[in-house]
Order: sequence, then C-alpha cells, then structure tokens
Amino acid sequence: MTYAVIGTGAIGGFYGARLAQAGHDVHFLLHSDYEYVASHGLQVLSCDGDFYLPHVKAYSDVHAMPRVDVVLVGLKSTNEHLLRTLLPPLLGEKTLVVLIQNGIGLEADVQSWFPGVALAAGLAFICSAKTEPGVIRHQCYGSINIGNFSCADQGLIDAVVQNFCDAGIEAHEVDYTEARWRKAVWNMPFNGMTVALRTQTDALLAHPSTRRLIYEQMMEVIGAANALGVTALDESFAHKMLQMTDDMVPYSPSMRLDYDFHRPMEIYYIYTRPIAEAHAAGFDMPRLAMLESELLFIEKGLR
Amino acid sequence: MTYAVIGTGAIGGFYGARLAQAGHDVHFLLHSDYEYVASHGLQVLSCDGDFYLPHVKAYSDVHAMPRVDVVLVGLKSTNEHLLRTLLPPLLGEKTLVVLIQNGIGLEADVQSWFPGVALAAGLAFICSAKTEPGVIRHQCYGSINIGNFSCADQGLIDAVVQNFCDAGIEAHEVDYTEARWRKAVWNMPFNGMTVALRTQTDALLAHPSTRRLIYEQMMEVIGAANALGVTALDESFAHKMLQMTDDMVPYSPSMRLDYDFHRPMEIYYIYTRPIAEAHAAGFDMPRLAMLESELLFIEKGLR
Repeated sequence: MTYAVIGTGAIGGFYGARLAQAGHDVHFLLHSDYEYVASHGLQVLSCDGDFYLPHVKAYSDVHAMPRVDVVLVGLKSTNEHLLRTLLPPLLGEKTLVVLIQNGIGLEADVQSWFPGVALAAGLAFICSAKTEPGVIRHQCYGSINIGNFSCADQGLIDAVVQNFCDAGIEAHEVDYTEARWRKAVWNMPFNGMTVALRTQTDALLAHPSTRRLIYEQMMEVIGAANALGVTALDESFAHKMLQMTDDMVPYSPSMRLDYDFHRPMEIYYIYTRPIAEAHAAGFDMPRLAMLESELLFIEKGLR
Repeated sequence: MTYAVIGTGAIGGFYGARLAQAGHDVHFLLHSDYEYVASHGLQVLSCDGDFYLPHVKAYSDVHAMPRVDVVLVGLKSTNEHLLRTLLPPLLGEKTLVVLIQNGIGLEADVQSWFPGVALAAGLAFICSAKTEPGVIRHQCYGSINIGNFSCADQGLIDAVVQNFCDAGIEAHEVDYTEARWRKAVWNMPFNGMTVALRTQTDALLAHPSTRRLIYEQMMEVIGAANALGVTALDESFAHKMLQMTDDMVPYSPSMRLDYDFHRPMEIYYIYTRPIAEAHAAGFDMPRLAMLESELLFIEKGLR
C-alpha cells in the first residue's frame, strides 16, 4: 500500500514513520523542516524504543508527490482550508483520506469540498511532540482508532487497520460519531483549561474546584453526544477519563503547546463546531461555551 | 451623629472623610497607614474637587475608640471574621452597622455573630482607590444606597441617608435584597473575568465573544435574583449595565486590583455564597460557578 502524510509533525510524522519502518511506501509532505528531513531523515525517540529512518521520501511540494492509496492528514485543523489545494494531487479513484486531527466536523467540511472522496477519522491516543527538525519525541501511548465516515470499500478500511497493527501500532476500527465525541470528552475540557489557567493536567485535577469543573465539562460533552444519538457514553466514562488522566504524567495538551509557542489554537473544530452541533440538537454546553469565549479572547491577545 | 469607620481604605475612607468634612464626629480605624494619617491627616483627590483633612481622629486599636451611633464597615470581606472582635467596642444600645462591602450573605453572617445589632447594607457606586498612605483617589461616581437589613429604627436609617446627602453624597434608601443582587449583576461578571483574563472592562466588552459571555453571566445573576424573589430585575437591566460599562473609562474592578497586588480575592462573598444561595433556591449559575473555580485555582497559585 502507498501512503502520503500531509503534516509530518508529532502525530502524522510518528504514524508515517512507523509505517515506513514496516516497509510501506510512505511519502512525507514537509514544511518548515523539509530541507533537514530530505538530508537527514526522520528520527523517532520513542518510549517503545528509538528508531531512525535515514532516507525518507520527503517533499516540499504536493505536486511532486504521487497519487496514493491512503492519505494520512496530520495537519493542524487551523489549516484545514489548505486541504482544498493539498489533497487533489494525491487522490486516485479509490484513495482513502484519514483525518488524524482533533475536533468535531472535520470530515463533514472536507467532504463538502470533495464530495466523492472516501473519508475516515483517525483518533490518535498518543503523547508525542516534534521537538526539533526531523525529531519526533514519542512519550507514551500510541494507539489509533479508525472511524469510517464515507468509505464504501470496507476492505480498504480493514487493510489500513491491518497495516497499522503490522507496524506495531495498536489499531481498531470504531464507530465514527461515537469515537469523535468520545475523544472530545477528554479534549474539550483539558485543551482549553490548561490554556485558560496556564497549567497542566495534573494541577487541574489536584485542585478540588477545577477537578469538579473538569468533570462537569466532561458531562457537558457526554450530554451533547447523547443528544446527537451517541448512546454508549455516560458518566462512568467521565470517571474513567479522570482516572486515566490521574495516572498520566503532568501533561500539556496540544492547545497548551500551541499557546506557549504562539501558534494559532484549534478553537474552531475543538469548541465552536461541537458547541454549534450540540446546540442544533437542542443541547447547550454553557461551561465549554464560556471556555471557548475565554480562548477566543486569549487568542486575540496573542495576535 | 457619631461615626466610626472600620477599614479606612478607598471606600470607607472616602465616605468617612466626606462626613468628617461636613462636620460629623468621625473616628477612623486604620491599619497600615495609621502612623501617617495620625500625623498628616487624610487627603482626598476627588473628581468633584480635592479636599484635605489635616486632623482626623485616627486609631490603631479599636479599644481606644468610643461607642458610636453608626459604624461604617469598609473592610475587605476576606477579613469579615475580624468583625467579631472589631465591632463590640463600638456598639452602643442602638448602634447601626452599615456594611459597605461587595457580595451576598455578609449581613446574615454578621447578624449570626451579633444577633441583636441593627444592620444595613451600603451599596457604593464609586471608582476610587487608596494609592498611597493617607491618600484616596476618587475617580468617578460616588453615590451610596442604603438597604435596611435589621434596623427597627427607621428614623436612624433616614438620618444616615440625610447625613450622606448633607455631606454632598448622593444617597438613597433601597430594598435590601434587591440592592445586593442588583449590584451583583455588575460585580459577579466583571470582578472575576478581569482576573481570569488579566484584562479590564473595556476589552471584555470590545470582543464579541466575551461581551456575549458577560451578558450571559449577568443573566445568570438576574435569574438567581428572580429565583430568590427579586422581581424587579430583568434583561433590560443587563443591557443597561453593559451600556453603563461601555461609557466608563477602562476599569479594573477591586478583585483585579487585589489580584495585581497579591492580596486575597473576595471569592467567598462575591461568588461562593451567592452561587450557594441561588442553588438552594433551585437556580444554578454554571458560568459563574466555572468562574469561581477558575478564581479559586488562580488564588491557590498566588499563595
């Protein structure tokens, strides 16, 4: 199978490197560190064992890349509009595009731009960061769930899941809508709250008042998911997410890193869009809407 | 009439100085700037005209003060417990204690400590600050409303209102519960939000997302007031408060100043207590409860 990775960062870079390491034909689109990676390859410092790919197929221009079976999108969703020009050169008749991004509404938007393309969500459970050019630091976890959004070819979904597994990555197929909202239960409280209070996951859970708030925000996401027909989530999942986060190292989610490095924050797909979708289904999320307002205010100050 | 001022700061100091200027016998309890004021008096730099009281009756110990007709309490509510020891030496048979403080539940607590004492709320509408020892900077506004909590002697309430008016201060008697909640409509959103986002009133209202949030928080306070039987407040009052704040100079409320100067914030009486009273009446304030959580987290970081 041939793969393209758009957005060779902490997430796209890690999964693409694993697939390349396993022998797949992987084509990496790079931006800021293209020159470095073209010369020096990719290095992955992983909790599961470091590895180094001295020669990778690196590109700075999507028009030089081939059409592929599968595109993995690891782009920041603040750049989602770039897919309108980045995707076409990579798309064959049956290409599957997997959006390994955070948020709600991503696949619907990409589908509206490319009505015929086969789309899936990639839900990554991984702590990793690109710390310098060509170097990906994989700290913990690493599994990926694939949710089929619009791919008629079930065999292609199965093959991608199998490729991930063969490359040493825990991978499963999951229900699309449930998986996106399940991930939002963690993402919506922690991404924004670590920015709003300039802190990390552990401190938020150590203080009783913010721990209760995080739980209430998780329950807003679960309530929204329920209103949108996802019946598998209830308060036990919120308790499980709190417990899981208690067991993690003190962590700065991606939005906190974006804030720290003065990069645009993914407010639209992580907050604005799910809040709007829940509202359209008759469910309001007052605490998360307040957090969205605070983040928009903070982002304005950064610009 | 004889007056005592407990907490000779921006508020208590201003009103006490006006009453002394008008010829009343006013006894000032001071803490950090006692030595300075005892030697140099009080200076008021006022938008209505500066004035200077070279000799004021200044005290550092409440036991040296006489019993008075009226006690004006300008203490920060974070020190409310100090009233248990500060008040008794000042109380005669019929002394009225006026709590010129922000928040909900102050009179109920003081009444529980002094069941027989006559209490009133003083709702100050004033921008002022104590900028250096013995100097009060009165920037704008200046009126005070008196809400009778437990004073059986209506003549005493009338006399205090008259004394304020005669001293050049706009003063009215108002309904106690309505006045406390009416003031909370402004106080609850702006005090905390200027701390949470390290900003001032004008920036919060200039950004559409925080302007809407401030309005929604005001409506939570109005909803709570309605649930507690205050029928005079509705959304028109929220619009009026937004308009009034638009017309103000960019302003840092008292909680923002407390935060900036690393002083304890009045979270309990401005947030915790009204949120609890509303909850007991069946009304929840999710956005303001979230703001309370953020403030408690921020305060913990300051200590």
